[in-house]
Amino acid sequence: MSKTLDFYFDFYSPFGYLASLQIDELAAKHGREAIWRPTLLGPAFKAMGQTTMLEIPMLGDYAMHDFDRYARMQNVPVKVPKKMPNHALPAARAFYYINEDEPALAKKLAKKVFHEIFNQGRDGSKPELLADVAEELGIDSAALLTAIAQTDVKQRLFDEVDKAMARGVFGSPMIFVDDEPFWGNDRLEQVDLWLQRGGW
Amino acid sequence: MSKTLDFYFDFYSPFGYLASLQIDELAAKHGREAIWRPTLLGPAFKAMGQTTMLEIPMLGDYAMHDFDRYARMQNVPVKVPKKMPNHALPAARAFYYINEDEPALAKKLAKKVFHEIFNQGRDGSKPELLADVAEELGIDSAALLTAIAQTDVKQRLFDEVDKAMARGVFGSPMIFVDDEPFWGNDRLEQVDLWLQRGGW
Repeated sequence: MSKTLDFYFDFYSPFGYLASLQIDELAAKHGREAIWRPTLLGPAFKAMGQTTMLEIPMLGDYAMHDFDRYARMQNVPVKVPKKMPNHALPAARAFYYINEDEPALAKKLAKKVFHEIFNQGRDGSKPELLADVAEELGIDSAALLTAIAQTDVKQRLFDEVDKAMARGVFGSPMIFVDDEPFWGNDRLEQVDLWLQRGGW
Repeated sequence: MSKTLDFYFDFYSPFGYLASLQIDELAAKHGREAIWRPTLLGPAFKAMGQTTMLEIPMLGDYAMHDFDRYARMQNVPVKVPKKMPNHALPAARAFYYINEDEPALAKKLAKKVFHEIFNQGRDGSKPELLADVAEELGIDSAALLTAIAQTDVKQRLFDEVDKAMARGVFGSPMIFVDDEPFWGNDRLEQVDLWLQRGGW
């Protein structure tokens, strides 16, 4: 598969999690590979003068209700972490560090991180979660934790966040089919149709 | 049909317009009647510390792009008014004034108002639009404009807005199936499934 699509997400995005369970299959159906691009939404929210959906009165309560209902509809068991929103900084840094040489492994790591956060309800801001996931994948967790504390590894994530911002990523998930942006797990059907028809 | 569902919308909501073209048919499919409930989102946005989507950097541009794409997908020709967002105060007042005695006529009026705003791109904040639509429906427009300037008619709309707020209406469209809220044109498929299954 030479063609790709871009899958932007924040590890703390409930709807990003739901989309992550479908995006690879959806891309493959159309002969594409989904390139996973974890980002941090903090800078985008700042530019928008926004907080996360969950922190907004009325909308926040609805959004979690909507998420639970969506997950039940898709038969996806979910357990939301106690502290929401939050930042999965260690995992996001580790993703790009590993991705440089081993993109397939980085994607596996991302899937497991998502699973720990939204299926197990674990705290994704803690290095312990990353360490456990790394060990499961046969990665030396102590070496990984040391690596992600280095300035250049930290900077790499910030560069990716800047690039996502420059591309107009303001939410999670956001999928780009070539230059066409789709925001939300609820746009996956349109992504499917867009790929099938080549746009409309 | 004894059962109903509630369709809340703001006349200046692009996605409310798209939903308005489908909601009656969707309700009827399940033996229900859609009760149309125009509201003003200003007070809800104030409580949320929000502006409308369209005014938010990054998100605003995307939202209009998404709307155009959605409309094209559904083969709905649209022409967005120059001034967005705005308030269709005359139409919203007229709706509840007429609705008291003639709900079917009020719904017809609402459909025509939506059409003028999002199909013709007309300014829905102006009484001229309401007057034109009223005349088309055989309503004395001068009498209607006099009626909606009365304090009790103005108050009736505000009471409806308060009730919508109290029910948790924070966006447009919002559909309530019994007490289950669904936000967005993109949740109509879930509304359909919810009605079919009786929830999940």
